[in-house]
Amino acid sequence: MTIFSRIIKGEIPCYKIAENDLFFAFLDIHPLVKGHTLVIPKREVDYFLDMNDEELSQILLFARPIARAIRQVIPCERIGMSVVGLEVPHAHLHLVPIRTIDDLNFTRPKLQLSEEEMKQVQQQIIAHLSF
Amino acid sequence: MTIFSRIIKGEIPCYKIAENDLFFAFLDIHPLVKGHTLVIPKREVDYFLDMNDEELSQILLFARPIARAIRQVIPCERIGMSVVGLEVPHAHLHLVPIRTIDDLNFTRPKLQLSEEEMKQVQQQIIAHLSF
Repeated sequence: MTIFSRIIKGEIPCYKIAENDLFFAFLDIHPLVKGHTLVIPKREVDYFLDMNDEELSQILLFARPIARAIRQVIPCERIGMSVVGLEVPHAHLHLVPIRTIDDLNFTRPKLQLSEEEMKQVQQQIIAHLSF
Repeated sequence: MTIFSRIIKGEIPCYKIAENDLFFAFLDIHPLVKGHTLVIPKREVDYFLDMNDEELSQILLFARPIARAIRQVIPCERIGMSVVGLEVPHAHLHLVPIRTIDDLNFTRPKLQLSEEEMKQVQQQIIAHLSF
């Protein structure tokens, strides 16, 4: 079972943002920028484009209101999105509030936010969510 | 009219990979890696997540066979995907064959490929395409 499946099952704690039947969203604990969120399919799929047609057609519709909420909470130009997939073998879409292209550069050192800061961002994003 | 709309109309030449009613795909002329391809909606939309529900639900299904073809042509681990959107105001999804995370780092200098190299990659990707 992937670490993300264990997060979905609640075996590993996370800063959850939202879920539906197919997907789960939570804060990245090694964020590039405050508000950096991961959207994952609940079904274990390693490579993003190996998701089935239903998942591929629904994931951006699920991500959109989350991205909008992040944008209201974190000052930014856009919500950048990336799929990399070289580490955890469970497909995931990064939503990153960006001001410059370097904000979406995964070779940069990640932020270390306190539990308090993470909870605050989580609560603010959730408060702005409307599906 | 955006530069991408002029490409779609054929007013500006491009190395076209594929199109359907909604989308158009072509090689990025400033590639991070050989094979770097852009997938865009034909309709002018600035911000990616402002695409309508039909576009958002179809774009990854359109991109999947293109990504698979690129993967067969360019030695890589994965096809990385990014949406940045800080430059051309016409939504676009980057498909980039990656071996390391730095291959998806948009702050890196872009490659300069010859017209011959671009045409060769274009033809190889098209030859491996099956929708």
